[in-house]
Amino acid sequence: MNNFVFYNPVKVVFGRGSVNQLGSYAAPLGTKCLLVIGQGSVRKNQTLDRCIGMLESAGIKHSLLENIMPNPRIEKAYEGIRLAKKHNCDFVIALGGGSVIDTAKAIAAGFYYDGDTWDFFTMKSEVKKALPLMTVLTVAATGSEMNSISVMQNDSTKQKIRAQGHPMFPTVSILDPELTKTLPKDYTAYASVDIISHVLEGYLTSEDENTPLQDGFTESIVKSVIEETRKLMSDLSDIEARSTIMWASSLALSGFTTAGIGRFKFENHLIEHSLSAYHDIPHGAGLSIVIPAWMKENRTLLKNKFEKFARNVFGKQSAEDAIISLENFFREINSPTSLSFYKISNLRELTDNIMECAPTRNLNLERGYVERILEKAK
Amino acid sequence: MNNFVFYNPVKVVFGRGSVNQLGSYAAPLGTKCLLVIGQGSVRKNQTLDRCIGMLESAGIKHSLLENIMPNPRIEKAYEGIRLAKKHNCDFVIALGGGSVIDTAKAIAAGFYYDGDTWDFFTMKSEVKKALPLMTVLTVAATGSEMNSISVMQNDSTKQKIRAQGHPMFPTVSILDPELTKTLPKDYTAYASVDIISHVLEGYLTSEDENTPLQDGFTESIVKSVIEETRKLMSDLSDIEARSTIMWASSLALSGFTTAGIGRFKFENHLIEHSLSAYHDIPHGAGLSIVIPAWMKENRTLLKNKFEKFARNVFGKQSAEDAIISLENFFREINSPTSLSFYKISNLRELTDNIMECAPTRNLNLERGYVERILEKAK
Repeated sequence: MNNFVFYNPVKVVFGRGSVNQLGSYAAPLGTKCLLVIGQGSVRKNQTLDRCIGMLESAGIKHSLLENIMPNPRIEKAYEGIRLAKKHNCDFVIALGGGSVIDTAKAIAAGFYYDGDTWDFFTMKSEVKKALPLMTVLTVAATGSEMNSISVMQNDSTKQKIRAQGHPMFPTVSILDPELTKTLPKDYTAYASVDIISHVLEGYLTSEDENTPLQDGFTESIVKSVIEETRKLMSDLSDIEARSTIMWASSLALSGFTTAGIGRFKFENHLIEHSLSAYHDIPHGAGLSIVIPAWMKENRTLLKNKFEKFARNVFGKQSAEDAIISLENFFREINSPTSLSFYKISNLRELTDNIMECAPTRNLNLERGYVERILEKAK
Repeated sequence: MNNFVFYNPVKVVFGRGSVNQLGSYAAPLGTKCLLVIGQGSVRKNQTLDRCIGMLESAGIKHSLLENIMPNPRIEKAYEGIRLAKKHNCDFVIALGGGSVIDTAKAIAAGFYYDGDTWDFFTMKSEVKKALPLMTVLTVAATGSEMNSISVMQNDSTKQKIRAQGHPMFPTVSILDPELTKTLPKDYTAYASVDIISHVLEGYLTSEDENTPLQDGFTESIVKSVIEETRKLMSDLSDIEARSTIMWASSLALSGFTTAGIGRFKFENHLIEHSLSAYHDIPHGAGLSIVIPAWMKENRTLLKNKFEKFARNVFGKQSAEDAIISLENFFREINSPTSLSFYKISNLRELTDNIMECAPTRNLNLERGYVERILEKAK
């Protein structure tokens, strides 16, 4: 096992109806918050009104920042910082999925920073201080509610990259599976792909082969997500399945499956982020396109790990079985498995972008390697 | 899945040589610490001198509280509180195993309390504030380094019971597997029994059957600990095995395997604590006596969970297989499996004590049930 530091101080308040505790958990953080939401689903299903009502009952005023899009843009963070400063906000509440939370993190961090908040993403600066952040999760996918990572997109530089820093850990994350019941079928599938990808990147590429504990945790997450997603595909309101997937999504990128596994490569995310940046496709849908192609390209190099994955997750044997089984699962839940699904053909441009973003993930890739993966994903 | 709140803010600094970072992690906590140690093994193997040297280099003075015994007595906590007050300590460092850490927690909590520190254990009072606590773990077993629980013994009342409170979470826990290499073979075995027991209590008795994720985590911990303990039984200095077991022990009682599983019963611990309180036997050794007997008594009631355990951990089928396989493993590593090993025969007195301590664990047991378990453990 490798050396590591594990630290995750997020207080998770999980369960059906837990959103009703919003007021009591928010009150200690201040009397004025910036409330960040997405493109209106929380308005439509009344979650926004419920939350505002609870905040008001707890004596908390709010300013609203809305219209955060999937693949969130840094410009919205700038807007949020201006708003939070103008209204002297004490803290930020993210009510939404990963894009909303990531934007809220960038706002919380940018609030105290004199320079350009994008500096945290290009690694020109470190996050030293941030406003307290609370999250109320409505889409279980990115795991942002239980880590200190923010992924933002900059349209002017065509970059979708990440920042990380302890001050961006949410103080409290409310995980109420009831709030995820209205997520449509396609996005429910994409979310599961995302969760699986988060644990697989570490599991499949870590150099350390002596991590039985962590491997077991990952296998348990992947098996559970596959099984529970199948249930959701036939009944989107299966609250037990929503619950397991919600907790799996938070744990998947919380650091506990990777603690001790040493260095690993987040290559599928790197590649997918370029797809999203250019084509604005759902992140999970992009991942189900990239992962099988990436596996095919790495079938020889990572043979042992693929075999272990085939054995312990799918009850099969070979590296090939692992690739086929996972790709079949993506097909089964109607998550796309080829670039043609979105008519994506600008492979050269994508390769340029991937090569350019690679250093922000400490990845040193050969151009030919990236080209071959995109070719296999066609 | 059941509702839960998960919160674990301990910063874990893990790995070979991580003890060398003691000074840099201790410095932010103050300039004067109470250093708590056990019965001298850290003196013998020079770990104490190394640690004192590092503290001094970091400008930190210390007062030493030594001779904490296994099954730690509350009197030593009183002594530590007096010492910490006398020397105006800013924080506490526990250098040792679970007994040392539990004592340090009681000291940290008692420091700010005007009443009797034992009140926290009898639930007469809650821990509101505590001195910051740092741990340097030398025995991987109890998991105390990554939770807010302290278990102490009171000889005058013949009680071994627990207190719990957020202020008792260690701020930093240094987990250096090199420090566990000198643990003798018998105690290495007992430690593994303890780790397994911590996850099994929840896994086997939780009322919620819809927890595939958590069950998988537990199965991974049990399987890994069994496998790595076997390696240690033939080579006590196997550092990879020591590493996996060390991290397993911290996670086992950190709350993450039990988050969402609902109510469960810590009956084996309740029963064992009475054995320890009367006969001063190692906690893990007591557990390997109690668990098989407890399983035999519960073979019908918990049939489904036993079968799952047999299947997923031992690759077998029946509830009976689960009991036999686990008992055989305890025998294989020479951890005792019957009361006769320690010539324990005061079953009536033990039953009285168990019945008396049960309410402190919110357990409501029938006397006949306890008697039958002890009878089966003879």
